[in-house]
Amino acid sequence: MNFTIRVALKKDMVFVHQLITELAIFEKEPFAVEITVADLEKDGFSKDSKFKIFIAEEKGIIIGMALFYERYSTWKGKVIHLEDLIVTKSKRNLGVGKALYRTLMQYAFDNNFKRVAWEVLDWNKNAIDFYENTGAKILKGWHVVHMNEQKLKNFINKN
Amino acid sequence: MNFTIRVALKKDMVFVHQLITELAIFEKEPFAVEITVADLEKDGFSKDSKFKIFIAEEKGIIIGMALFYERYSTWKGKVIHLEDLIVTKSKRNLGVGKALYRTLMQYAFDNNFKRVAWEVLDWNKNAIDFYENTGAKILKGWHVVHMNEQKLKNFINKN
Repeated sequence: MNFTIRVALKKDMVFVHQLITELAIFEKEPFAVEITVADLEKDGFSKDSKFKIFIAEEKGIIIGMALFYERYSTWKGKVIHLEDLIVTKSKRNLGVGKALYRTLMQYAFDNNFKRVAWEVLDWNKNAIDFYENTGAKILKGWHVVHMNEQKLKNFINKN
Repeated sequence: MNFTIRVALKKDMVFVHQLITELAIFEKEPFAVEITVADLEKDGFSKDSKFKIFIAEEKGIIIGMALFYERYSTWKGKVIHLEDLIVTKSKRNLGVGKALYRTLMQYAFDNNFKRVAWEVLDWNKNAIDFYENTGAKILKGWHVVHMNEQKLKNFINKN
């Protein structure tokens, strides 16, 4: 298979949006994507950009991506959060995901990040096996907590 | 109890570092804190600052803090991550944590963040009960994954 990896450009956001939607369907949350292509263009490519993306491309077609941004650990310092690692369905198991993952890890290493963190669904055994084989640790004993927009509004109004 | 909440200043970082260390001990990771006071001063108070902090102060003494930064959801847009919510041991159960939490939620609401996210230890029942009572959702079925600095280096060297 012949693909290349490069940094995403603003013009790629329509394809990035398609990949994000594809992942939401895979994660059984097809209606969760509220963000638009215009949001991605603004949020990723204005002065205060909120994320970076590595793109995998085959014959001019975008087939996968790794979207990430910086976080901060009060134990370790600056760390990277991998928000989405996505390969389009027809191109899975061909090394695209591993190449994107490898590129991200190299970026983290070259830029002195102290950790790369992300989240995985507990039923996604293929992903978990892959991550563990690369040396990543699946943390047991931590829960992710979310206060969503509506609950936030309710809480503010009542407290 | 008479305390005030304010935004942290650079001069507070020595006390912030103490609180971070206190939390690490509570979380049974006493040796995990690699960051220094100088790191916090640089990372929080230079041009590209990596976090913000609300401080709770009683008679000039810092007794608690909420440290947070921006993240990005590819489903919702810009969100806040609450990295640490800490109240020093002798001042717990007096409303300090709730006041800090309330201040953070108001900040998120006022600035149009789409979510506030954080992580909690599964044995920290007091914290979980508190969060759920405010409307936050403990996500089941997601694991946090970490690739630490050493494992990252090993992976890069082998792949």
